[in-house]
Amino acid sequence: DGQYQNICVLVRAHVSVNPAKLKSHRQRWNVRPSEMSKKTLNPIRAIVDGMKLTPNPEKPMIALSIGDPTVFGNLPTDDTVLQAMKEAIDSHKYNGYAPSVGYQKSREAVSNFYSCPEAPLEGKDVILTSGCSQAIELAISVLCNPGDNILVPRPGFSLYKTLAVSMGIQVKHYNLLPEKSWEIDLQHLESLIDDKTACLIVNNPSNPCGSVFTKDHQHKILAVASRNCIPILADEIYGDMVFPGCDFQPLAPLSSDVPILSCGGLAKCWLVPGWRMGWILIHDHNDIFGTGIREGLVKLSQRILGPCTVVQGALESILNDTPPEFYQGTISFLKSNSEICFSELSTVPGLNPVMPTGAMYIMVGIEMEHFPDFQNDVEFTERLVTEQSVFCLPATAFEYPDFFRIVVTVPEEMMIEACIRIREFCARHYRPRSQDSHDLDQ
Amino acid sequence: DGQYQNICVLVRAHVSVNPAKLKSHRQRWNVRPSEMSKKTLNPIRAIVDGMKLTPNPEKPMIALSIGDPTVFGNLPTDDTVLQAMKEAIDSHKYNGYAPSVGYQKSREAVSNFYSCPEAPLEGKDVILTSGCSQAIELAISVLCNPGDNILVPRPGFSLYKTLAVSMGIQVKHYNLLPEKSWEIDLQHLESLIDDKTACLIVNNPSNPCGSVFTKDHQHKILAVASRNCIPILADEIYGDMVFPGCDFQPLAPLSSDVPILSCGGLAKCWLVPGWRMGWILIHDHNDIFGTGIREGLVKLSQRILGPCTVVQGALESILNDTPPEFYQGTISFLKSNSEICFSELSTVPGLNPVMPTGAMYIMVGIEMEHFPDFQNDVEFTERLVTEQSVFCLPATAFEYPDFFRIVVTVPEEMMIEACIRIREFCARHYRPRSQDSHDLDQ
Repeated sequence: DGQYQNICVLVRAHVSVNPAKLKSHRQRWNVRPSEMSKKTLNPIRAIVDGMKLTPNPEKPMIALSIGDPTVFGNLPTDDTVLQAMKEAIDSHKYNGYAPSVGYQKSREAVSNFYSCPEAPLEGKDVILTSGCSQAIELAISVLCNPGDNILVPRPGFSLYKTLAVSMGIQVKHYNLLPEKSWEIDLQHLESLIDDKTACLIVNNPSNPCGSVFTKDHQHKILAVASRNCIPILADEIYGDMVFPGCDFQPLAPLSSDVPILSCGGLAKCWLVPGWRMGWILIHDHNDIFGTGIREGLVKLSQRILGPCTVVQGALESILNDTPPEFYQGTISFLKSNSEICFSELSTVPGLNPVMPTGAMYIMVGIEMEHFPDFQNDVEFTERLVTEQSVFCLPATAFEYPDFFRIVVTVPEEMMIEACIRIREFCARHYRPRSQDSHDLDQ
Repeated sequence: DGQYQNICVLVRAHVSVNPAKLKSHRQRWNVRPSEMSKKTLNPIRAIVDGMKLTPNPEKPMIALSIGDPTVFGNLPTDDTVLQAMKEAIDSHKYNGYAPSVGYQKSREAVSNFYSCPEAPLEGKDVILTSGCSQAIELAISVLCNPGDNILVPRPGFSLYKTLAVSMGIQVKHYNLLPEKSWEIDLQHLESLIDDKTACLIVNNPSNPCGSVFTKDHQHKILAVASRNCIPILADEIYGDMVFPGCDFQPLAPLSSDVPILSCGGLAKCWLVPGWRMGWILIHDHNDIFGTGIREGLVKLSQRILGPCTVVQGALESILNDTPPEFYQGTISFLKSNSEICFSELSTVPGLNPVMPTGAMYIMVGIEMEHFPDFQNDVEFTERLVTEQSVFCLPATAFEYPDFFRIVVTVPEEMMIEACIRIREFCARHYRPRSQDSHDLDQ
């Protein structure tokens, strides 16, 4: 018996010396991309990469597809903004690590800029992020678990779905109504809510619609969220980018109870999207997020830390010193270009543009039944490139077929030329519904 | 029968009109942080926040804890680096969106800087990221699925575990051997590998050890990876930050088959950690990653886009124009400070510093049996603050008890003063092992 035990000890000792031999391990290389990377799908890329985009060699290309106001050089940022950056560099104060949620001084600059009596903000209510994209990522990450669902607008910005699906979160689309200036179909919205609904995403002003909700409509959205106890992620990156006569109202000051994470950044209003300076404003008047959500955001921010410290250092001056004329100049340009585009295209048979009131986009409906040459908006916009060298994103990229989106940040003469070409293209392919067949339908 | 069917249709029609009423939804607010945010744990914060850090009011605080070379102002970045930023701003060319993996020109600047005949790189092999942290996050995200495991060094930088655990990836620690200049215990490393091992993380030069692997040792690491078909994530953020006489050798040029994602950035060598400019170099001589991993990285980069475009615009000049004297100056300072610290502490009874050959850290072993006043390294370093106002990170934060880490970027006079205080502290608490008890043990 004692001898048997000794043998066992010896065997065990031998085994424990060389445990690797007992374990299975790979015998050949087999490195595959993770499921998460495979689930990270960018519909715009998927659609655009699948299109045959060969411009007409006789016409210079006009891209009305890129949501970057800086590409044509006609919308430079303000000198104040650039000066603030150079001062931040010269100060030698912004080269080290900032706290992962941003310098306190920079957070306070943002809270001071956005605070109002109905929705007061302090520095602690601001998380600085690497662009509004990271703000949206952190907000979804902190509110949702795999298996939950989120409510996103249709048509809507594709990033919400890209992020959610990659995290195993289900996406439910609620409809926007073009005939009501892209207001939310509130009944449809509410019908989608179930006990796994973790978050309602409201994008106002809207990409791709260029629409701006009225105060009254926002009250109704808040009522749905309140009734169903759903927190809101308000994507307000185009906030304040609204045309004269229209009033942008951030969501949070209208809410008495619904907790809101409002995402924004420098990208659009200050025309520096590449600088990757975004933020989350935590609005929680009734302490529903409590410390849990705040601590969760801090933890998540520690994964890759926040935005570039130089831009953080410049932030206070950018927010406080940029002259009002700069914003007004951008907005009046966008409005003027939108009006040109709208009035040109609204007289084109077969097209139904929806006049925007903010942001930098126009959605244009295609009466597909009058364009039998094309199956859908993707084919329509593809052929528009082939024949006229004008590229607009088919709204299938925003889950909204039979529309296309025009970016109105291009120089005016380019906008006019593009509209002329779109008119020519439509005139060539438009087929009026014959009176006969119409009569037969009756 | 027909009548029954009609009733069914009616019932169905009624149900479909008002589906919301049939669904369960929340009746009260219950917003909780996600599991992922709760699983995002920063051990340094957890340990430091749990310590009572009340400095001795009679002595000014000396923090040897912060891995940020810029905090004391004695290690400024080079003027070339700042000038490159200002030129990028003045050019007005770097305000718009860059591709999510970075401008091609900036990627090529990085590939040119790091390319060598044994491991040639092109622009397509570089992914620009928001700091080395995002580089590591993307690399882990693309290689690993939940349920996989990764091999990380002990002692080691805590971010690997923070990221992995938050993604549901198991962490297995392989030992570094202080008596062998912190080389990897290769037998232990190999014993941990199983068929769920997705990635081996090699950090060289090491945080927190300040060690630099020899070429010979790196060949042995590669042999383990090759034998077991495990890809490597090489965290080489301290690459080239090695003392004269010691040769830093990146891992990839030594590998004939193992695919390697090498992570680096501007943070340490250029002394601008806040700027969040990092990169992944994709080394895949034998096409084992193939297009899958590359495409996965591109997809993941589209979630929040890359680093600040101004820094990207400055990158070529930063890499090419920074004078060699700048790097040499930093390194000779770090070496000199390390030597001061090492020679001071190696004559302190009860302490065993390990002389570094690179990076900016020294690990110091504590002979805990000679310090009966303290249970562990956390209590030791806590009391060092209370009595001497010197703060070093307990190496428990790096999964390595009974050591502490000293950051050697502080000004020389501060380093000297800190060592004097540490000596005083140890002298007060050191208890020699009595000869009697020693005899009794024999």
